[in-house]
Amino acid sequence: MERKTIKDLLTDYKTILHHDITVMGWVRAFRSKRFIALNDGSTIDNIQVVVDFENFDENLIKNINTASSIKVSGELVESQGAGQSVEIIAKKIELLGDNFFEELQSTILQPKKHSLEKLREQAHLRFRTNLFGAVFRVRSAISFAIHQFFNQNQFFYLNTPLITGADAEGAGEMFGVTAFDLDQIPKDENGDIDYTQDFFGKKTNLTVSGQLEAETAAMGLGRVYTFGPTFRAENSNTTRHLAEFWMVEPEVAFNNLEDNIDLAENFLKYVIQYVLEHCKTDLQFLDKRFAEEQKQKPEKDRAKEGLIEKLENIVKKRFKRVSYTEAIEILMNSKENKKGKFQFPVESWGADLQSEHERYLVEKHFGCPVVLFDYPKEIKAFYMRLNDDGKTVAAMDVLFSGIGEIIGGSQREERIDVLRQKMKEMNVDEEELWWYIDTRKFGSVPHAGFGLGLERLVLFVTGMSNIRDVIPFPRTPKNAEF
Amino acid sequence: MERKTIKDLLTDYKTILHHDITVMGWVRAFRSKRFIALNDGSTIDNIQVVVDFENFDENLIKNINTASSIKVSGELVESQGAGQSVEIIAKKIELLGDNFFEELQSTILQPKKHSLEKLREQAHLRFRTNLFGAVFRVRSAISFAIHQFFNQNQFFYLNTPLITGADAEGAGEMFGVTAFDLDQIPKDENGDIDYTQDFFGKKTNLTVSGQLEAETAAMGLGRVYTFGPTFRAENSNTTRHLAEFWMVEPEVAFNNLEDNIDLAENFLKYVIQYVLEHCKTDLQFLDKRFAEEQKQKPEKDRAKEGLIEKLENIVKKRFKRVSYTEAIEILMNSKENKKGKFQFPVESWGADLQSEHERYLVEKHFGCPVVLFDYPKEIKAFYMRLNDDGKTVAAMDVLFSGIGEIIGGSQREERIDVLRQKMKEMNVDEEELWWYIDTRKFGSVPHAGFGLGLERLVLFVTGMSNIRDVIPFPRTPKNAEF
Repeated sequence: MERKTIKDLLTDYKTILHHDITVMGWVRAFRSKRFIALNDGSTIDNIQVVVDFENFDENLIKNINTASSIKVSGELVESQGAGQSVEIIAKKIELLGDNFFEELQSTILQPKKHSLEKLREQAHLRFRTNLFGAVFRVRSAISFAIHQFFNQNQFFYLNTPLITGADAEGAGEMFGVTAFDLDQIPKDENGDIDYTQDFFGKKTNLTVSGQLEAETAAMGLGRVYTFGPTFRAENSNTTRHLAEFWMVEPEVAFNNLEDNIDLAENFLKYVIQYVLEHCKTDLQFLDKRFAEEQKQKPEKDRAKEGLIEKLENIVKKRFKRVSYTEAIEILMNSKENKKGKFQFPVESWGADLQSEHERYLVEKHFGCPVVLFDYPKEIKAFYMRLNDDGKTVAAMDVLFSGIGEIIGGSQREERIDVLRQKMKEMNVDEEELWWYIDTRKFGSVPHAGFGLGLERLVLFVTGMSNIRDVIPFPRTPKNAEF
Repeated sequence: MERKTIKDLLTDYKTILHHDITVMGWVRAFRSKRFIALNDGSTIDNIQVVVDFENFDENLIKNINTASSIKVSGELVESQGAGQSVEIIAKKIELLGDNFFEELQSTILQPKKHSLEKLREQAHLRFRTNLFGAVFRVRSAISFAIHQFFNQNQFFYLNTPLITGADAEGAGEMFGVTAFDLDQIPKDENGDIDYTQDFFGKKTNLTVSGQLEAETAAMGLGRVYTFGPTFRAENSNTTRHLAEFWMVEPEVAFNNLEDNIDLAENFLKYVIQYVLEHCKTDLQFLDKRFAEEQKQKPEKDRAKEGLIEKLENIVKKRFKRVSYTEAIEILMNSKENKKGKFQFPVESWGADLQSEHERYLVEKHFGCPVVLFDYPKEIKAFYMRLNDDGKTVAAMDVLFSGIGEIIGGSQREERIDVLRQKMKEMNVDEEELWWYIDTRKFGSVPHAGFGLGLERLVLFVTGMSNIRDVIPFPRTPKNAEF
C-alpha cells in the first residue's frame, strides 16, 4: 500500500480510486464517532475517513480525539457528501503517538476561535491551524516563485554576509555581534574596548542590507540577487516592523532606472501570478477570511477589492509611473491636503513622503500600483545616481494599496568622482568602503537594483494585518521566544 | 537592436544570426588591437568582438584595455576561428565607465596567475575571474536545485529565526547578539548584567541550527525545509570551517530512518544531476583545473576520479548503507588500523569516527558513497530516537569521498518519556525547551530530518579545496572584511 499525502489524494485521485492507500495525519474533528477529518499539512483541505466502529477496537476509537495523530489504511472511494471528491473507508487505524487531551484544552489546538495574539504566544503550534497553515504555505510559494523568476532570467543567487564590519550604509540601528563574555570585556591601555581580541578582531554587526556586496558581484556575474535575513535594532513595536526579516535584493549590471522599474514590475507580477496559480485553496480560505474581517470595519475603512480580486488586478494592470515632482503637485493640490486631513501636510517640493501620502496616490488618486521615481537627492542614500538636474537621484519606489512602499530601489552612481563627492556630503567613510569604491575604478558600468521586504509582500498577498503573523517566529522588542 | 547576454548569443544564436545585436560586458583581452574577448558574467565563455580599427576613433581604441567596460553593437556572424560558434563584427563601441589602468596593475584583475590567497584578499573583485565566476555560478545552480527538489516533493520552505534565546542544542559555541553599548552595560542590584534591558529582554545568540523550530513546523505542515545562514563561534582556522555558513535542514513528519536515508540519497543525486545538466561549461573548466591540481600532488594523494566523473558516479551508484557496528568492525580489522596508520586508532565499539575513518570507508573500502546508521547514543544529540537495543540511536551520516560527512541526520525521538529521560541524562534544560516538548504532547508522530552544509557540497562539486573559496565573503577568526 503506497503512502500518499492528502494533497495527492484530493488532486490526483483518478488513477488510485478504489485502490487501498495509506495516509497519516492529525485529526481535526471526529464527528459522530464515524467521520474523521484528517489533515497532514500538505493542503488546507482535510480528507474524510469513514470509520465503521464495529470493525475497530472500542479503546482505539475512544482515544481518537482532536489533534490525535493517526495512520489510516483503507480504500479510496468517491465521496457521497458534498464538498469533497473522495474519502477513505478505513480498514486499519493506528495511533502514532501521545495526545494529552487535558493539556490540549489550554492550547490553541482546542477547536474554538482563538485571538491572533494567543496564536502568536503558541507560535510552535499555530502551524496546525487552517489560517497559519495557509499563510506559511503561501509564504513558501512566494519564496519559490522569487527563486524561479530570477533563475529563469539568468540571475545568480548570491549569499552576502550576515555578520559585517561595515556600518556604512546607515540604513538603521544595528545589532552588535560578539564572542566576548560581557562580564569580562577586554580593554586596551586607554581603557577602551579592545575589539582586536574579539572573534573577528574588530567591532561587528548584523547586516541591514546586502546591496553594497551585491553590487560588487554584479560587476562580475552581471545579474545577481540576494535573498536572506536582514536586521534592524529599531525599538518599533508596531504591526509593520520586525527586528529580523527577509529581504530580496537584485542587482543588475548595465541596467538603468527604466530597466530597474521594468524588472520590479515584471517580478511582482510573476510572483503574484505564481501564487494565484499554485495556492488556489489557501487563497480561497484567506479571501473569505479577509472579506469577513472587512465586514467588521466601518464602511469608509473597508478595502475596495476582495483579496483575490486585488491580486488579479496587480497582474492585469500596468503600474502607473509618476515622477516625485508630479506626485508632490498632486498631493499639494489634493483636497485631503488642503483640508488638513493628512497627519503630515505636504508643503513643498523636497518633503519626504509618508505612508499616508503613498496610500493616497495608490488608493485614491490612481487606483492602481504606482511607481514614483526621481526623488530629491537629500532624502535618499549616497549610492543613488545623481540626475542631470543636479537636484534629484534616479531612485524608484513601488507603492501598493494597503501597504505603501513594497519595493525601493535605484540606479546606482557609477561615476567615481560623483560618488566620492556624495559620500563626503553625506559623511560616509570612504576608507571603510574602499572595496565598494574599487568597483568604480576597474570597468565601472551603469547598474541598478532594488530591495523587497518579503514579509510586506506576504502581508499583501495573504491579507493579514500584523507582520508578526507572516513570519514563523517573529523577533520584536522584548521578544525572542522559541 | 535588442540587448542580449553573452549566454543568449552563444547558446541561442540560430534565430539572430546576421542580425544586429547589442551586448555589454568587460574586456578580458584585446588581441592585436583587433579581437576583443568580452565577458558579461552570464557564462564563463567570452564572445569575440572583431574590431576594424579603421572604422573607429583612435582614442577610443587606445582606451580599451583589460577590465574596460564597453557596449558593443554589431552584426552577429558565424565565427571563422576555432572554439567559438559566433562572433560580433563591431559597428559601434562605447566605453561605459572608468578604468584606472595603473591601479589595475596591483589588483587580481591584472591578467596573470594569482594565488587563491590574493584572490581572497580582493574578494570583491574575484567575481570577475574565470575561476570564481564558475564557482559562484555553480553555487547558485546548487541552491536553485535544492529549492526545486523540495518544491517538487511537496515541501514548504520555512524561515527559522537567526536570533534565538535558546542555547539548548549545544551544537557549538555561539555568537552573542546585543543592542547594548558595550561601554555601558546595565547591571542589576546584584551586579549581574541586566539582560531585561537589552533589546529582546534576555540574552540572545545567533542560531547554530533551525532544526528544533523546523520540527514544530513539520508537526503542522508535514514536510518542511530550512535553507539559511548558521553560525559557529569556534576559533578554528582551517580549510573546512566558517563562522558563518549556509545550512539546508529538511524535516519530515511520518518519516522513519530509512525514509530519511532515501530522502538524503535522492536529494543529493537530484542536485548533482541538476548541476551536471545546467553548468556544463563551468564544470568543464573546473574539471580541467582539478586535473591540473591533482598532477601537482604525489601520486598516492591524487583523486582516483576526475571531477565530472566523480559527480556522474554519485548519480549512478547506489549509496552503500552500513551500520555503525559493521563500520567499526571493518575499521578495527583494517590494515591501516593494525599498522597504526590512523592518527586516531579505532579501539572499540563506541568510538566517535574521525574524518580519516570516514574517508577510509568511502575511498578505500567501499569505493562509493556510504551511509552509516545506528550510532552509539552517547556520541549523538539528545533528540535522536533511541533504538530498541537501548544502546544506539537512529542516526545517519552520509559520507562522500574527499569530504567525509556531507549530511548528518536522524529519526527524532517522538516518545515524550524517552525524550525527557534523554534530556535529563544530557543536561538539556527542559524549561527552556517547553515548546519543543509540547510537540510530543499533542499528536506526536515519528519524524526525521537531516542537515546539509551548503559549502561542503559546493566544495565537493567544484573540486575547490578551501571552504573560503566557495562562499562570496568568508567569515573566519579575525576576518570580517567587506
